[in-house]
Amino acid sequence: MRIKVILPNSSPELAKDREKDRKAIVGIETEVDVTCLPHGPVSVDNASDEARSTPFILDEILKAEQEGYDAVTIDCALDPHPRAIKETASIPVVIGGEASRALASILGDKFSIITANANAVDFARHNVEASGFGDRLASVRSLNLSVLELLDHDKAKDAILNEGIKAIEKDGAHVIILGCAGMSPILDYLQENLGVPVIDPGGSALKLAEAMVTLGLKQSKKCYPTPPPKEIR
Amino acid sequence: MRIKVILPNSSPELAKDREKDRKAIVGIETEVDVTCLPHGPVSVDNASDEARSTPFILDEILKAEQEGYDAVTIDCALDPHPRAIKETASIPVVIGGEASRALASILGDKFSIITANANAVDFARHNVEASGFGDRLASVRSLNLSVLELLDHDKAKDAILNEGIKAIEKDGAHVIILGCAGMSPILDYLQENLGVPVIDPGGSALKLAEAMVTLGLKQSKKCYPTPPPKEIR
Amino acid sequence: MRIKVILPNSSPELAKDREKDRKAIVGIETEVDVTCLPHGPVSVDNASDEARSTPFILDEILKAEQEGYDAVTIDCALDPHPRAIKETASIPVVIGGEASRALASILGDKFSIITANANAVDFARHNVEASGFGDRLASVRSLNLSVLELLDHDKAKDAILNEGIKAIEKDGAHVIILGCAGMSPILDYLQENLGVPVIDPGGSALKLAEAMVTLGLKQSKKCYPTPPPKEIR
Amino acid sequence: MRIKVILPNSSPELAKDREKDRKAIVGIETEVDVTCLPHGPVSVDNASDEARSTPFILDEILKAEQEGYDAVTIDCALDPHPRAIKETASIPVVIGGEASRALASILGDKFSIITANANAVDFARHNVEASGFGDRLASVRSLNLSVLELLDHDKAKDAILNEGIKAIEKDGAHVIILGCAGMSPILDYLQENLGVPVIDPGGSALKLAEAMVTLGLKQSKKCYPTPPPKEIR
Amino acid sequence: MRIKVILPNSSPELAKDREKDRKAIVGIETEVDVTCLPHGPVSVDNASDEARSTPFILDEILKAEQEGYDAVTIDCALDPHPRAIKETASIPVVIGGEASRALASILGDKFSIITANANAVDFARHNVEASGFGDRLASVRSLNLSVLELLDHDKAKDAILNEGIKAIEKDGAHVIILGCAGMSPILDYLQENLGVPVIDPGGSALKLAEAMVTLGLKQSKKCYPTPPPKEIR
Amino acid sequence: MRIKVILPNSSPELAKDREKDRKAIVGIETEVDVTCLPHGPVSVDNASDEARSTPFILDEILKAEQEGYDAVTIDCALDPHPRAIKETASIPVVIGGEASRALASILGDKFSIITANANAVDFARHNVEASGFGDRLASVRSLNLSVLELLDHDKAKDAILNEGIKAIEKDGAHVIILGCAGMSPILDYLQENLGVPVIDPGGSALKLAEAMVTLGLKQSKKCYPTPPPKEIR
Repeated sequence: MRIKVILPNSSPELAKDREKDRKAIVGIETEVDVTCLPHGPVSVDNASDEARSTPFILDEILKAEQEGYDAVTIDCALDPHPRAIKETASIPVVIGGEASRALASILGDKFSIITANANAVDFARHNVEASGFGDRLASVRSLNLSVLELLDHDKAKDAILNEGIKAIEKDGAHVIILGCAGMSPILDYLQENLGVPVIDPGGSALKLAEAMVTLGLKQSKKCYPTPPPKEIR
Repeated sequence: MRIKVILPNSSPELAKDREKDRKAIVGIETEVDVTCLPHGPVSVDNASDEARSTPFILDEILKAEQEGYDAVTIDCALDPHPRAIKETASIPVVIGGEASRALASILGDKFSIITANANAVDFARHNVEASGFGDRLASVRSLNLSVLELLDHDKAKDAILNEGIKAIEKDGAHVIILGCAGMSPILDYLQENLGVPVIDPGGSALKLAEAMVTLGLKQSKKCYPTPPPKEIR
Repeated sequence: MRIKVILPNSSPELAKDREKDRKAIVGIETEVDVTCLPHGPVSVDNASDEARSTPFILDEILKAEQEGYDAVTIDCALDPHPRAIKETASIPVVIGGEASRALASILGDKFSIITANANAVDFARHNVEASGFGDRLASVRSLNLSVLELLDHDKAKDAILNEGIKAIEKDGAHVIILGCAGMSPILDYLQENLGVPVIDPGGSALKLAEAMVTLGLKQSKKCYPTPPPKEIR
Repeated sequence: MRIKVILPNSSPELAKDREKDRKAIVGIETEVDVTCLPHGPVSVDNASDEARSTPFILDEILKAEQEGYDAVTIDCALDPHPRAIKETASIPVVIGGEASRALASILGDKFSIITANANAVDFARHNVEASGFGDRLASVRSLNLSVLELLDHDKAKDAILNEGIKAIEKDGAHVIILGCAGMSPILDYLQENLGVPVIDPGGSALKLAEAMVTLGLKQSKKCYPTPPPKEIR
Repeated sequence: MRIKVILPNSSPELAKDREKDRKAIVGIETEVDVTCLPHGPVSVDNASDEARSTPFILDEILKAEQEGYDAVTIDCALDPHPRAIKETASIPVVIGGEASRALASILGDKFSIITANANAVDFARHNVEASGFGDRLASVRSLNLSVLELLDHDKAKDAILNEGIKAIEKDGAHVIILGCAGMSPILDYLQENLGVPVIDPGGSALKLAEAMVTLGLKQSKKCYPTPPPKEIR
Repeated sequence: MRIKVILPNSSPELAKDREKDRKAIVGIETEVDVTCLPHGPVSVDNASDEARSTPFILDEILKAEQEGYDAVTIDCALDPHPRAIKETASIPVVIGGEASRALASILGDKFSIITANANAVDFARHNVEASGFGDRLASVRSLNLSVLELLDHDKAKDAILNEGIKAIEKDGAHVIILGCAGMSPILDYLQENLGVPVIDPGGSALKLAEAMVTLGLKQSKKCYPTPPPKEIR
């Protein structure tokens, strides 16, 4: 099968970095391509970025369908307007945020999310509550690191480990969800040192998309009807 | 005070129609201007339309601030990405959907929403649940009328009345929320004949915006931080 | 329009103080009268006070209707038996507690309430939960001030500011609701210094009552049927 | 032990009728006295009645304490301001509504309430939701019988049986709660013919009060602090 | 009436200790026998123990029915598969965990559970949430005592008192539920010194079972149908 | 990787039938073995069956670990004591019920479950509510077919299709979960004819177990601590 992984930003360099990680986790028979958006914000850190990137995500999904992909994933820890995405897609689509919550629900009762950006704490919490998983949310914690500091993997490793331990010890988290794609390269380090499951939303979305294609499943058109053609000025 | 009413679509003729209704309900000291979007879908009937119109709504809010308005409303029965809207706005902004739920919470325990379009039923229900008012939702009912039939006010009147009565008698609704702006001209007729409060979301948003300006209130920047400048490609 | 503001206690001096604040926030065309109860507790600090004042509130509402008022408000941060009040009233009635929660739901995701009296903390929390807004409650905090200390506005100002900051920083509040009418004179000071919306329940009830009269809305008799005449011994 | 059973109305004839039923279910060592209120509505059918009877209930509780009773019950299927009652009482107090929900939670997942009066349906539903048992409520059904018809036990029997069957078959109820004290004389008939547990709130309150005295339990003053003396005008 | 109290473990010495406490709280007309299981874990501290003891509990219930008991209780602070127990039993059965939550719901808004074993904290929390009482749970706290230290009643007393105070002061508990049967001998000490209701689950189950027999109530077979005979290999 | 699929019953013929279906959906590199229990009920239709089979499931999991499997699944539409299973397992374990709910949460807002047996309706509903997915449950419907009739695939096909259509049209389901393993052979037929996603719990558990092994995830020991050795008599 062929799956297209869509990053919700306009940064080709991020898409390139992600490709190796994504290809590493699929089965022999699965072909994966990773792309970013042709336009829109260079990164998605808040709801406004999300709103400005969503129209381009919708276009990219329609394009992937024409290219014959069997499924798409939105490689993102957030939830960029899931209903618009699922209305638009005719092939299976899985978004990072929802995939991480679905897996977390099996791995433990309560999860915490670690975000890079303090401003994203309420945004991430709201996404969880709006998706019906609010009772499982132990906490959202942020690293208080600048983007530059986050690119220094050694610094980031320690900061995430530190907040993860607090989430487990103080907030009662059983599972940690990484709230930012920049954190996935240090996933193994975190798994080993935190002693609880650590979920990478983008990777989870890809494995669930693969499972859905095999199981003959895709989003219900009863819930997300395909929009009829509409005049756009 | 000066309030700008923003329709979430690109249809100037709809904005013009709405202006009279909106000017009729504000105080002597309030000046109201009604506008639609320069681009985007000609109407908003589903989540995809909403996603494609939201970037233009954000731009229109920023423009209203530069023009010196004291508040804006989004004149819409739906919730076009409230978080992006509230992050972006520095002046008070009230959206039709949230205004109608806030008033309904005072008027009765359970409300129903009447939508024009059968495809919008799950969308409207989801908006209510995601906003935390799910326990108050008695039902969402649709008219099964084409847009043309809806423009025939006599036909529309009967259809809404009919669904409203079912919402009250069968679903236990105490309050009816109109799920579509096309219904506001027949508001008085419905109020009289249904015998329960009938809420027009756009009008409610305007009265609440007026109240908020007087009370010195606007959306919390602790919840909706203003996004920092971001490169958009 | 004419609105009667009813204080739920028997202290005319409090009613007099309140009148100026209330008249200041209504439109030119709105006439406001503020009254207290002829009998009952001199202040309402707990559920027992509330229970003992409610019969007099019901009588005062019936009187306001006979006097031709268009609406009444109960100028109180608590919820003195809302169902009895709404069954009894035929004209629109808005209570401070419910008005503050309705506005808070638009201004942010989570709110905290600041009460004067430590004994009222559980009472206020219970009111919020029973009204269906429990998921939005960040915390209830009390000032631990005696009534005398509360009358010293400088002392009260600092104490409320202090608890408000803790509610925001520690409890995650986006909005502060004042849990006691004695706090409204320092509303402006709090708005400025806390940096988040600060809601005065009594003022909010009045602005919402005004909006409801204009919008043709009042409590649903389907939810709150007018009680038939009953023998009272 | 000595328990006083308080009816929330001013009808001595009802209290007299109730006494035999209540004495029949307590242990040999328990002495029971049944009383009604000296003043207030002759029956409690809605929230306004409830509000007007509550001050007299509070007085009756204080009197029972002075008379040396070990516990009191409020013999009522509704919840006449439980917080005011529990603040006021220093001895254990159990109210019919809460007792019936506590027992129902052990007997099955979902319960229905059968009320005499159609106007009480929303009131009863709201009480259940406000007390935190909303997820267990299958339905509230009413008999649509006049009070006179209800006194005709044969007619009442059939009507309750009929609504009970509908609650079980259509609404998914596992347990039936009688929503009106007038129904208790036909409890045995209903238990036999409905084939599910049928709960009489007043009797349940009495057995739970007895259990609480034996177990050394009474309402938490941490939740319901005794109100300090207050000037009442 | 005759009630059989079943301990969910295979330790006859524990059953013997419990007998005196249980006989002390029933009415003159009630005969109580206390038994443990013939096989299974010697104590129940986690879900695995629970799973391994449940088949023997089911057998013991069937035996009690053949012996002519009027009711059984499962004398346990946990919930060893309540649905299997209630399907199996034809006579009334009450389990310690559910009895303690039912009584707590009347005594205050929020309760905490004190467990001996730190590993049982999440287990106890999950039981409360799965039973629908999650909104009332203030906290679960553990003593961090070894079993041997727990048998030293003086040490245990102080430890429980200490955690109970923290539950009340820091977590907002109004009621304390003992999470372990080993704590019941010091119940009186705790009641006196904590100043809030302290609930012993096993004793509560016994008093509720007694009440249910008198009230003609037992678990609904509509919710818990008796399983048809099944081949077991 | 090697995954062991455990059926929760003692019927080798059922295990054999299931093997082909399960081998068909895994990747080339995954080896699957299907087994049933050596003892216990021949089928699992109610909570009592579940309770009596669980000890043997725990033993089978421990055996699979010794045999070097990378993961196990419990091939069952129900939830046979998930906490005991996850405490016991050191390798990843996924249960059919939880896997189906996790996937359903991505595919639509509301799901229905179709069970063979009318007696299992409340049991299945309770499992969903206890696992925190109650707000997503549209309905549980049963086929009212005897086991023999269910083995007649043509009869079963029509019956499931029929109830599935009612779940979608009347109850608002977006997704159908098969509540019984006997239904999986006709999965394709149902997918095609119902027009919404149809989920087979056992197959879903297997694909999720495969994904978890690849993603380095297994149940959190912080939530489900491995039980220490315990004397079992």
